[in-house]
Amino acid sequence: MHPLDEAIALKPGAPDEFTGATHPAYANMVGPFGGTTAAQLLQAAWLHPSRLGEPVALTVNFAAPVAEGEIRFLARVARTNRSTQHWIIEAHQSAEIVATATAVFALRRETWSAGEAVMPSGLPDPASLPRMPALGPIRWPQSYDMRFIEGAFPEAFDGQEQEHSRSCLWVRDEPGRPMDFASLAAMCDSFFPRIYVRRRRRTPIGTVSLTTFFHADSSLLAQVGTRHVLGVAKALNFRHGYFDQTGEIWSPEGQLLASTHQLVYFKD
Amino acid sequence: MHPLDEAIALKPGAPDEFTGATHPAYANMVGPFGGTTAAQLLQAAWLHPSRLGEPVALTVNFAAPVAEGEIRFLARVARTNRSTQHWIIEAHQSAEIVATATAVFALRRETWSAGEAVMPSGLPDPASLPRMPALGPIRWPQSYDMRFIEGAFPEAFDGQEQEHSRSCLWVRDEPGRPMDFASLAAMCDSFFPRIYVRRRRRTPIGTVSLTTFFHADSSLLAQVGTRHVLGVAKALNFRHGYFDQTGEIWSPEGQLLASTHQLVYFKD
Repeated sequence: MHPLDEAIALKPGAPDEFTGATHPAYANMVGPFGGTTAAQLLQAAWLHPSRLGEPVALTVNFAAPVAEGEIRFLARVARTNRSTQHWIIEAHQSAEIVATATAVFALRRETWSAGEAVMPSGLPDPASLPRMPALGPIRWPQSYDMRFIEGAFPEAFDGQEQEHSRSCLWVRDEPGRPMDFASLAAMCDSFFPRIYVRRRRRTPIGTVSLTTFFHADSSLLAQVGTRHVLGVAKALNFRHGYFDQTGEIWSPEGQLLASTHQLVYFKD
Repeated sequence: MHPLDEAIALKPGAPDEFTGATHPAYANMVGPFGGTTAAQLLQAAWLHPSRLGEPVALTVNFAAPVAEGEIRFLARVARTNRSTQHWIIEAHQSAEIVATATAVFALRRETWSAGEAVMPSGLPDPASLPRMPALGPIRWPQSYDMRFIEGAFPEAFDGQEQEHSRSCLWVRDEPGRPMDFASLAAMCDSFFPRIYVRRRRRTPIGTVSLTTFFHADSSLLAQVGTRHVLGVAKALNFRHGYFDQTGEIWSPEGQLLASTHQLVYFKD
């Protein structure tokens, strides 16, 4: 079983309740990688017997550090319409909320479709780029195969402020795993904090809010299979302890799979 | 009293409960302008006796059409930390949920700060541009003073597909009103649907999810006063009944006040 599938394995309990746990393959410096928590919150709605359709929007608010161990998920249908469904999901540890989420699921239909943003072109193949080496003892980045074209995790925190914080990389689950909504939801949190790229200076950070829009349905995701996808990320603004981070995930064929936006706390 | 202040006037009831109503100055084709609903949801947390700090992130999911008349708001603190606070907010009509929201509030501090995105420059002054005329019987756009530089509401729905859906405009509340979080939250939903700009073709649309990150604190917002701010908007992708819409709101001095992202349903 793939570590991500182990990480999102939730056990149903009372109605609307599921139990999961943190997974060592997705451990962060303190507690779990937020992407896995996001995927677990989404999975609680995905596994719910009342689910309609597939996710189109997910917002996760990280309310407190998640401790290693068991997490209790509460997934409640706020409203079901003919083709859309609204969810409120909570993650609890020791009777306290550690994360909240809302999700919109929908039945998608064929319509006029068009891209407007365009995937960067003329990029080297993933196979021609080196895989990012391990980040010391931090485990979760090793659960991804990341091959940076621009804006890698700084080799040294030398305090040399950069002109921008843009990154561009090929990324996939490691070991390989067919792309699906859980993988995509987690991957949308896999961009390193923009402030590290911009400032090359260590500062405590923590994502407070993460929104992902899923532009792809499950059949488009299935076409990606286990190949690398292209991730691009940037920030718009850093001010008074918070910065934003915007990312896009593109299929190898240039289809936008997800766009994602997060607001991140930083200490100084 | 300004119409927006009337629209966001909520009456406290039982603990965590507030009652408000739709306002004729913000009527949309059917039901109210979503920006006002977003501002009301935010206001329920803002007015709550347990509130800590100021909003940094707001996500509103529009679950069903809001009917004209009374709306009951439920604002619940999910978690309060030393410098952040997490909210789950619901809007009810006739015992059904019509919208859900989550919000993150925070005490902001002075830190290293830097812009990364840059406001478009060399733009004409608002006073040198014509105000957008009324959109037939639809009331809410008349509660804004909008002066388009690019990507105006199409003069004709002639079906001429455009190369892109970008808009750039000066906008303020009409009548003038000092900028604050309520005004900014509502204004972030005031960009017309990107699909109208792109396709110049009518199709039923409806925002399902709207996320706004507030990059400004109340003192920076106060500096804006009643002047126009610059709005820019674009879409990344239109596919299978949903498109995204990204916007930025800039102060006249070029400070990013908010970035906003929504996912919008379209029929065909």
